[in-house]
Amino acid sequence: MTASSSVPRGRRPGPTETREDILDAARDLFSQQGYEKASMRAIARRAKVDPALIVHYFSSKEGLLTESLTLPLDPARLLDDGLRGVADDEVGEALVRTVLGLWDRPALRQRLLSMLRVGMSHEIAMGVLRQTFARTVLAAVARLADDDTAALRAELVAAQMIGLMMARMVMQLPQIAEADADDLARLVGPSVQLYLTGPLDTPDTP
Amino acid sequence: MTASSSVPRGRRPGPTETREDILDAARDLFSQQGYEKASMRAIARRAKVDPALIVHYFSSKEGLLTESLTLPLDPARLLDDGLRGVADDEVGEALVRTVLGLWDRPALRQRLLSMLRVGMSHEIAMGVLRQTFARTVLAAVARLADDDTAALRAELVAAQMIGLMMARMVMQLPQIAEADADDLARLVGPSVQLYLTGPLDTPDTP
Repeated sequence: MTASSSVPRGRRPGPTETREDILDAARDLFSQQGYEKASMRAIARRAKVDPALIVHYFSSKEGLLTESLTLPLDPARLLDDGLRGVADDEVGEALVRTVLGLWDRPALRQRLLSMLRVGMSHEIAMGVLRQTFARTVLAAVARLADDDTAALRAELVAAQMIGLMMARMVMQLPQIAEADADDLARLVGPSVQLYLTGPLDTPDTP
Repeated sequence: MTASSSVPRGRRPGPTETREDILDAARDLFSQQGYEKASMRAIARRAKVDPALIVHYFSSKEGLLTESLTLPLDPARLLDDGLRGVADDEVGEALVRTVLGLWDRPALRQRLLSMLRVGMSHEIAMGVLRQTFARTVLAAVARLADDDTAALRAELVAAQMIGLMMARMVMQLPQIAEADADDLARLVGPSVQLYLTGPLDTPDTP
């Protein structure tokens, strides 16, 4: 807010800066008020731009939503980096540690939180969330289970990770919210490992 | 909608019926539009009552929200019923099966969905969600781990179950959404069992 007072008077922000300001404002308002309630006018006001500029850059409110949910770093690549050199039977723990580590990156934290919050209440945002998870987790699973169980394994891992992130970041269940990320990786890793490499069909009959 | 045409003309709905109509309308609109956007006026219009009646019954919009999230059956009791007579090492699977079974009850399905969707985007609804899970899962965990690890175990179970329900009901990840509830219980049960009765502190050193 006050940072703008150090910018020389009369200098106008460049297009990239304006675009980013609009996206920041949209993320804040979508996350606080929900997609439906946050109006283009309110977003423009917060970003200190003319509402017409939003249409110019993003065509529509839905276009703005989709862009606002795009992550500045590729989570699939970050996950791949985190799992490099890890033994097959330790991928579960490493995966949890790496995903929790994404939240420690200032560039990602606010966006992931916004994606989770907005995603649960709006269809388009849900689509972005679904794709992000599918792409990220499927890539990680593929190296261990490159067969017809990969899709199910990836979804089971995704379900566990979504629940963990919800519990820690959104619902803030006290024990999970306050736990050290490494401790949490040790606690949840074995379950993720089960989904990655464990048996998928326990016999029904004794 | 058309059911009302079979009601004799001039007969006015009783207070209980009106109250339930308002709650139904509120759940629909909170779930579809989000809490912020859904106005008292729109809820009154949908329920075909005077907006003043909502204030009369629920005092405020927040009161209406809290009431609309109250479940008609006690999930802790249903869970307790589902776990009765189950061997200690099979509680994980039974717990998943019972929780998924709650969604098959018409009286609960829409409310659970509304609770999850609204809960992730609004602080008061989140509080109700947090309490419902804490109470329900803690009660189930207490019979197996009545010590100082119970709270952490309960949160780990809750995180897994929230993720599973999100994946199946809200995000509708295809494999998990279409899986048979019993199959899912067999797949996720072992992880829940780990959280319930497994070791909590894997040694850090080799």
